[in-house]
Amino acid sequence: MSETRTDLQRQYDTLRARNLGLDLTRGKPSPEQLDLSNALLSLPGEHDYRDASGTDLRNYGGADGLTELREIFAELLAVPVAQLLALGNASLAVMHDSVVDALLHGVPGGSGPWRDVQDLAFLCPVPGYDRHFSICESLGIRMIPVPFVNGRLDLDTIARLVAEDPAIRGMWCVPMYSNPTGLVYTVEEVEALVGMPTAAPDFRLFWDNAYAVHHLTDDEPPVIDVLGAAATAGHPDRPLVFASTSKITLPGAGVAFLGGSADNIAWFRRHSAAQTIGPDKINQLRHVRLLKSADGVRRHMRAHRAIVEPRFAAVLAILERRLTGVATWSRPAGGYFISLDVAPGTAAAAIALAKEAGIAVTPAGSTWPHRNDLVDSNIRIAPTFPSIEELEAAIDALCTCVLLASAVD
Amino acid sequence: MSETRTDLQRQYDTLRARNLGLDLTRGKPSPEQLDLSNALLSLPGEHDYRDASGTDLRNYGGADGLTELREIFAELLAVPVAQLLALGNASLAVMHDSVVDALLHGVPGGSGPWRDVQDLAFLCPVPGYDRHFSICESLGIRMIPVPFVNGRLDLDTIARLVAEDPAIRGMWCVPMYSNPTGLVYTVEEVEALVGMPTAAPDFRLFWDNAYAVHHLTDDEPPVIDVLGAAATAGHPDRPLVFASTSKITLPGAGVAFLGGSADNIAWFRRHSAAQTIGPDKINQLRHVRLLKSADGVRRHMRAHRAIVEPRFAAVLAILERRLTGVATWSRPAGGYFISLDVAPGTAAAAIALAKEAGIAVTPAGSTWPHRNDLVDSNIRIAPTFPSIEELEAAIDALCTCVLLASAVD
Repeated sequence: MSETRTDLQRQYDTLRARNLGLDLTRGKPSPEQLDLSNALLSLPGEHDYRDASGTDLRNYGGADGLTELREIFAELLAVPVAQLLALGNASLAVMHDSVVDALLHGVPGGSGPWRDVQDLAFLCPVPGYDRHFSICESLGIRMIPVPFVNGRLDLDTIARLVAEDPAIRGMWCVPMYSNPTGLVYTVEEVEALVGMPTAAPDFRLFWDNAYAVHHLTDDEPPVIDVLGAAATAGHPDRPLVFASTSKITLPGAGVAFLGGSADNIAWFRRHSAAQTIGPDKINQLRHVRLLKSADGVRRHMRAHRAIVEPRFAAVLAILERRLTGVATWSRPAGGYFISLDVAPGTAAAAIALAKEAGIAVTPAGSTWPHRNDLVDSNIRIAPTFPSIEELEAAIDALCTCVLLASAVD
Repeated sequence: MSETRTDLQRQYDTLRARNLGLDLTRGKPSPEQLDLSNALLSLPGEHDYRDASGTDLRNYGGADGLTELREIFAELLAVPVAQLLALGNASLAVMHDSVVDALLHGVPGGSGPWRDVQDLAFLCPVPGYDRHFSICESLGIRMIPVPFVNGRLDLDTIARLVAEDPAIRGMWCVPMYSNPTGLVYTVEEVEALVGMPTAAPDFRLFWDNAYAVHHLTDDEPPVIDVLGAAATAGHPDRPLVFASTSKITLPGAGVAFLGGSADNIAWFRRHSAAQTIGPDKINQLRHVRLLKSADGVRRHMRAHRAIVEPRFAAVLAILERRLTGVATWSRPAGGYFISLDVAPGTAAAAIALAKEAGIAVTPAGSTWPHRNDLVDSNIRIAPTFPSIEELEAAIDALCTCVLLASAVD
């Protein structure tokens, strides 16, 4: 606050000379977090390849995934096990392929393939997850950004848009510890989303519950039963629920899940039958052996929290010290990100300064469709991967860049 | 030969009373074959998670797949390592997704998405692989069956069709030990396919080298360098090469590969970037540790052969004894199938009789598009999964059904 432009420029020049080489770009677990799952590297063990029913999991088949693993995550995700599939290594692929199936074939309750919808559009609460937006961009789907208002979903605008425009067929939702804001949807918000009238009868909520068990405090809110709420509201097919173990066990070597109404699950099954004979059931067995039960997952996530929570605290302490009164930021109770809002019109400049000083931050605008932050204000901070020392150096440096970018002469 | 209809009916009634419960439907490895790869169940080991360059494979990244594994299969598949990607657990998914990418985005050298091509069509040599045809059927692509002539590709018809019809954009090819005929393409045939003029500039050979190392004799022909031949012919982008370890290690828990020209690989990478952050690199490391080298794969495949070859011999001996003069069949030098051609108009009836007697055979017509064998003659036999005793009982029973179906009163 009391730092002058000259002070800041001097700090920045020193910083640049050090060329830190730090990376805050992606939500990657740290090596210590990965160590928690090292047992996967030798599981299930040389003589362990049958499921509870005696089926040899080494061979083809079993498109729905391993029942034992589906049971564990059915409890955690509040999805009936019959309506939960355990699939490949990435929920991103399940989301992508669901949108592709909708484009090419249409969805239950619809009147044809979405590719035939003129000006097909998805609602995108912003700031949001860049890879959701990349799916739409890659597939030529129009994105309508809907900024959060006071950190919460703008339900009035969302309800008005879907009621008016039949071309809106989808909306991206991260209901727990949203990427990047940390927002947790309330029961009332969930009920509003599954209940609101929509011009399109086949409107879908792409419900990415990526951080369902990724708590950072003693308060561990249960997952809201979105499928039950949707059925009660008379729109059972509206939500498609996605999740994965990417930030529970090993990213890239985990298991993805799809939950939905019986009709949606039958629809996904039918189209994926042309794409695959089945998921990697041995890897699913590995996960059953490591995690054991829903409580096993909860214990495992508390071990993550012990590693992750001090990193979030370190970032928040520095933001507090250096940016109070200059910027605002989220204080998430879970998930992987801190969302920093700097003075409008200065985020890109701050990120460019950081880059020149050797600190990689998620590119400016990444949290908006087409990487175009209309306010030029949002910076996504991913605190998990660096060591605390590196993280503190990087965040302190980023603060200098934020202050310098917004300093007036 | 000397069996009368009454004899055959009596044999069949006995058979039916026994209700054998045998399954010849799918090309699945036997449990003994799977045992060859049981080391995968505890590999790579708890402290082994870095590649040769030191990268921690437990975390996100590495979309091209593990270099060490790509090097092994580059040698076996005759594809330069820079043009070979190691991907997920199923080459079927890579084929499906390649066709989807072509539909939605078009391919290098083309003039737009294939979904805009009126009457878009693929050539389908028949008998062929049912799951290739399912991809086309699922995606609404017209299939033009081109029957083999004397067991070889009908190159004259193929060349004429692709020269005349710009709607033909693809052709399914299994160049080694074709499913189900066992055909191995010659260098001349490969050169004809990559060199023939096509009305569509973006015609693609979907080159499924699923059985590249799956020899059943001492003659182990090397894989033909289709990418080199295509480049020499001036059509470097024509082949897309697919392969997997499904029938090398564990089906469903293996690794798929995509090979192609630099432009095709860049094209696939670009579109898959919206779908996934990367494949399961830990599973790829497992495969490197098990297989070690191209020679390691060759040794591993000889161990498979020791298990599989007697099964093929048992089937051929029974066919010889019971169906000589009545039917014809392939005598494959590799791969997973024996293709049996019975009297035209009797295959479906024979398969129905077998089913009633408790012997599951791949459904009638499966080796033709839309399960519609226009000659009603082809039966695909998958000898690998049952024990020799079960296999002999099942094939003997199938022969009775074939004879009964074609017996005249």
